[in-house]
Amino acid sequence: MMHSDVIEADLNLITLTDPFLGEYQRLIRDVVIPYQWQALNDTLVHAEPSHAIENYRIAAGLTSGEFYGMVFQDSDVTKWLEAVAWSLRQKPDLELEKTADEIIELLAQAQWADGYLNTWYTVKEPGLRWTNLAECHELYCAGHLFEAAVAFYNATGKRRLLEIACRFADHIDATFGPGDGQLRGYPGHPEIELALMRLYEVTREPRYQALACFFVQARGQRPHYYDIEFAKRGGTWHWGNWGEAWMVKDKAYTHAHKPLNEQDQAVGHAVRSVYLMAGLAHIARLTHDEEKRQTCLRIWNNMVQRRMYITGGIGSQGIGEAFTSDYDLPNDTAYSESCASIGLMMFARRMLEIEADARYADVMERAFYNTVLGGMALDGKHFFYVNPLETHPKSLPHNHIYDHIKPVRQPWFGCACCPPNIARTLVAVGHYLFTPLPDALLINFYAGSEAAFRVADGTLQLSIQGNYPWDGNIAITLNNPHPVAHTLALRLPDWCDNPHVKVNGEAAQGEIIKGYLHLHRTWQKGDRIQLSLPMRCKRVYANPQVRHAAGKVALQRGPLVYCLEEVDNGEALHNLMLGRDCVLRESVGTGVLENKIVIQAEGKRLATPVNNAPLYSFDYPQTAVQTQTLTFIPWFSWANRGEGEMRIWVNEGS
Amino acid sequence: MMHSDVIEADLNLITLTDPFLGEYQRLIRDVVIPYQWQALNDTLVHAEPSHAIENYRIAAGLTSGEFYGMVFQDSDVTKWLEAVAWSLRQKPDLELEKTADEIIELLAQAQWADGYLNTWYTVKEPGLRWTNLAECHELYCAGHLFEAAVAFYNATGKRRLLEIACRFADHIDATFGPGDGQLRGYPGHPEIELALMRLYEVTREPRYQALACFFVQARGQRPHYYDIEFAKRGGTWHWGNWGEAWMVKDKAYTHAHKPLNEQDQAVGHAVRSVYLMAGLAHIARLTHDEEKRQTCLRIWNNMVQRRMYITGGIGSQGIGEAFTSDYDLPNDTAYSESCASIGLMMFARRMLEIEADARYADVMERAFYNTVLGGMALDGKHFFYVNPLETHPKSLPHNHIYDHIKPVRQPWFGCACCPPNIARTLVAVGHYLFTPLPDALLINFYAGSEAAFRVADGTLQLSIQGNYPWDGNIAITLNNPHPVAHTLALRLPDWCDNPHVKVNGEAAQGEIIKGYLHLHRTWQKGDRIQLSLPMRCKRVYANPQVRHAAGKVALQRGPLVYCLEEVDNGEALHNLMLGRDCVLRESVGTGVLENKIVIQAEGKRLATPVNNAPLYSFDYPQTAVQTQTLTFIPWFSWANRGEGEMRIWVNEGS
Repeated sequence: MMHSDVIEADLNLITLTDPFLGEYQRLIRDVVIPYQWQALNDTLVHAEPSHAIENYRIAAGLTSGEFYGMVFQDSDVTKWLEAVAWSLRQKPDLELEKTADEIIELLAQAQWADGYLNTWYTVKEPGLRWTNLAECHELYCAGHLFEAAVAFYNATGKRRLLEIACRFADHIDATFGPGDGQLRGYPGHPEIELALMRLYEVTREPRYQALACFFVQARGQRPHYYDIEFAKRGGTWHWGNWGEAWMVKDKAYTHAHKPLNEQDQAVGHAVRSVYLMAGLAHIARLTHDEEKRQTCLRIWNNMVQRRMYITGGIGSQGIGEAFTSDYDLPNDTAYSESCASIGLMMFARRMLEIEADARYADVMERAFYNTVLGGMALDGKHFFYVNPLETHPKSLPHNHIYDHIKPVRQPWFGCACCPPNIARTLVAVGHYLFTPLPDALLINFYAGSEAAFRVADGTLQLSIQGNYPWDGNIAITLNNPHPVAHTLALRLPDWCDNPHVKVNGEAAQGEIIKGYLHLHRTWQKGDRIQLSLPMRCKRVYANPQVRHAAGKVALQRGPLVYCLEEVDNGEALHNLMLGRDCVLRESVGTGVLENKIVIQAEGKRLATPVNNAPLYSFDYPQTAVQTQTLTFIPWFSWANRGEGEMRIWVNEGS
Repeated sequence: MMHSDVIEADLNLITLTDPFLGEYQRLIRDVVIPYQWQALNDTLVHAEPSHAIENYRIAAGLTSGEFYGMVFQDSDVTKWLEAVAWSLRQKPDLELEKTADEIIELLAQAQWADGYLNTWYTVKEPGLRWTNLAECHELYCAGHLFEAAVAFYNATGKRRLLEIACRFADHIDATFGPGDGQLRGYPGHPEIELALMRLYEVTREPRYQALACFFVQARGQRPHYYDIEFAKRGGTWHWGNWGEAWMVKDKAYTHAHKPLNEQDQAVGHAVRSVYLMAGLAHIARLTHDEEKRQTCLRIWNNMVQRRMYITGGIGSQGIGEAFTSDYDLPNDTAYSESCASIGLMMFARRMLEIEADARYADVMERAFYNTVLGGMALDGKHFFYVNPLETHPKSLPHNHIYDHIKPVRQPWFGCACCPPNIARTLVAVGHYLFTPLPDALLINFYAGSEAAFRVADGTLQLSIQGNYPWDGNIAITLNNPHPVAHTLALRLPDWCDNPHVKVNGEAAQGEIIKGYLHLHRTWQKGDRIQLSLPMRCKRVYANPQVRHAAGKVALQRGPLVYCLEEVDNGEALHNLMLGRDCVLRESVGTGVLENKIVIQAEGKRLATPVNNAPLYSFDYPQTAVQTQTLTFIPWFSWANRGEGEMRIWVNEGS
């Protein structure tokens, strides 16, 4: 029996039927998971090596050799397992299940008798466990193991990985805490906090929730734990790329510069920030801790009102993969890591679980349909780690401010956090579609699906049909055999001016509260809700404080942000201009843009002059201003047709 | 008797009377030289230490202690001596002369018996001379010593420093070259090439010219000398900031990636590039080497037609202080080092000495009146190393792409190349005003001055009067007691549409060749040339390939580029717009802008919204578009009124 405080939708009861996301889930199952399996086993050609499986084999004593990879290499495997878990549920695959079970046994063999499990500290630095929390990701890797275990148990009912996780969690719980002889530390890279809360929801072991609380409470207290452990280990450091022990010293990078209840800005490493906040929001909800909720709100507001790209990307700079300052949102040097937008979805979802306010779902949808989907190529085999809003490939190799930018998606990364993170998110997207609050089922966005929810009065069954995110006409049909009284809360998206909702053919009678239309009713089989969410292509303007979007406009249709690409529009995209009043025409694309809506408009181009035209001139450029049809494509699908310029924010003319 | 191939103007015969530059020369004499003397002796408060004099004292055995500072710290002293030389000529100062003589004796005491002179390799790494040419600036420091010696001899007639320089040059000549047992190396940081050519012009020692030729000829040959010396010294490196031995490996950084006659782009470290090209152009002229001249031309064209800022700044990126690629000219992350624009003046001047083409003088003037003058505060005590074209101070501390940018000038730098370089350039600005070619005296720009030139037919004396660069009405009066037949070639600046020139009240009869009006005549006392070079404030547009200036306009009046500052225009300068047709009004500024012409126009401002206005909106920003008077000041004088936003390229509206 599930406890009433568990709000996560049960993916066992959700089947995606959506043509758009369904194709993504198929891609994950049929292409990405096998592809990543090859990557983890180093059988991919033309990709950076992983060695992640081999590290486990060495740690398990099955083979000898050296550790290879990042200090957090283990997590690539557990994120892959997490994706596999829900993939197996969606489409049984005996061979894949056998492989997964074998990997789980490998993890069991690599686990120490006391529960500890981490290949770096088993193979590479034995004897040094828990000596460098600030830099070395042991607790982060543990968190991903716990998340994989929760998924595997929830999806397959198998307890083996959950037992491994609990043994490790118990070991961590014995090691860390306020008691005598326990370490007062907390992770440099948050993740375990949210993972412990999920583990708690599955196991109901109160120590796991208490341990998560301890980690967030200890964070940033003085004397500073990172300094203490730094001195204790003799002043050594792991990451030297930006100077000696920078990650130990720059405590804002890890959000440990002060206690969380004193923090009020989104700073430091973006992924860490949102992972931490997701855990904190989860704790705040389950412990009814208003102070923690207020911390989440402060960080949320600063993040999404001043430091988020239109794409739902966060992290404005490559150095530190980090936030910068209010309204500092450069387009071509953005970091906007795929994982950071996944973390933003996680944070948004937890906030939504506290409070049914569509502003969280608006951000969640923005991050998902733009940066997260954009992180993976349409072939499922290439990935973006970094997601700029503008690229000029000719300049990238020569100006070091672009060192982190790739003009096209890459087959794999030495630091491969993003590809498996995208995979595990896409297979579990049902967690984001629905938020089953005790008193209302929130439907957050309208991907086609069949779903069931146990509510107080019985089981609610419904199907969502449509062609989201391309078409705003959505039908929700109730299928539960027995009438069930409950509130359905339908998000009215921020991008929609004039939503219309009918229930059984009549204008819906409901209350709009914080962006959700709440429909309370005894729902019965055959009830039909029709949503009309007109998806007119709209112009978007940034707050005038954003200097990198001054004088510029972006296009958005439904949740999708659009961009210009060189392949459609020629080079020098900075010389294109969209008139303020010109008509935006929609059509359906072809090739890799098949089934995708493309926007066209009659714009203008300041032509590129002949070679060796003067660099500066007292005359307005002699070249003619020409009329040109501008073609905008959904940004998530850029760079699927080779390398070229791309630009979201376009000059707007009168 | 000066040889006819020496084209450098004799500063002993030039007196600056210009109110504008005269004030700068006064500042150099009365403020900068004493201030820098304090800096070199570490008696400044609130400034980074120098230790440069102390290093020489330790090397001379007068005191004991550790070397402190950069591997090229010596050059700060010799650049200071070079400035002092011409300062003494302009305004005798017995105490300063005594100090300089004492420093020269200190250098003599620090010089080894074999002529070698370098404090780093005397104090810090004895026994390791000439083992790391790629990275360690020994030949660079030698070059600055030679330049100081030439200046000191030319300005004061004293030979002591010249003797020191020649002893060192002889030692270097014995050490390097194609002969048996000689090293085949060449400097990682060029400078000695141009310095040897100047030393040659003073001493007529042909070995010095031959040595300069050897250095440029050896550059970039295979097997690569930097690799050979790297292996020989056991694979050690000096600069580790961007990875192991990067300066050894990245041969384009030092312009040694291929032989010079195969190079055709301005790449790598900007200062090194222009110093090298200045030396190469000097060699090309004196040796009549067409291949070397063609190399200079290729690099020149690429540099000024595709990689130079409107301010005459070069080097688009902080990392490597380097060029990037064609038309990649970001305004806010520009490097545009003060020294690089000084080097660009040096390169331009040598090109002009080869060919009387005003395009070289146009660039020389642009670099001088904008970036070089802008490198020093109006108080003579603060300096810019880096000269961005746009700053947003609130963002600087948070986004690492701005790590090299300072919002205001600094009192001194740990790496203090720029301040003494600006000083030595300003005291010797006469070298740039006039180019006395054998067949014509080029007058390059019209700073007020009294000057004399020995020409074939006698001595030409003239005075230039006016209020350059603020007023285009210039009078040139001939003062030579005896008639002299010669050609005066007056530059008709690129910024002037309709120059008018009269000789003795009548329209000048002359030929315009490559931007110079050539007036051949027997000039006599009382002859008077009146130039009218109308200085209308003009709009400048960048080549449409420059994406960072798309849709933007800059203002220029005469040679001066203008900018907006926050102190005059409020914050969020990116929201200001200058209408295409609006009137530009001129007035004279006040306070630190006294005597400077300020431009005003009725522009528009998109007002900044209230706090917490949405980050993105489907509506055009609700805040009103307001009319606002825009105030533009000469860019060289920005940041003299505290910290604030600044911007050269401004949005242009219809």
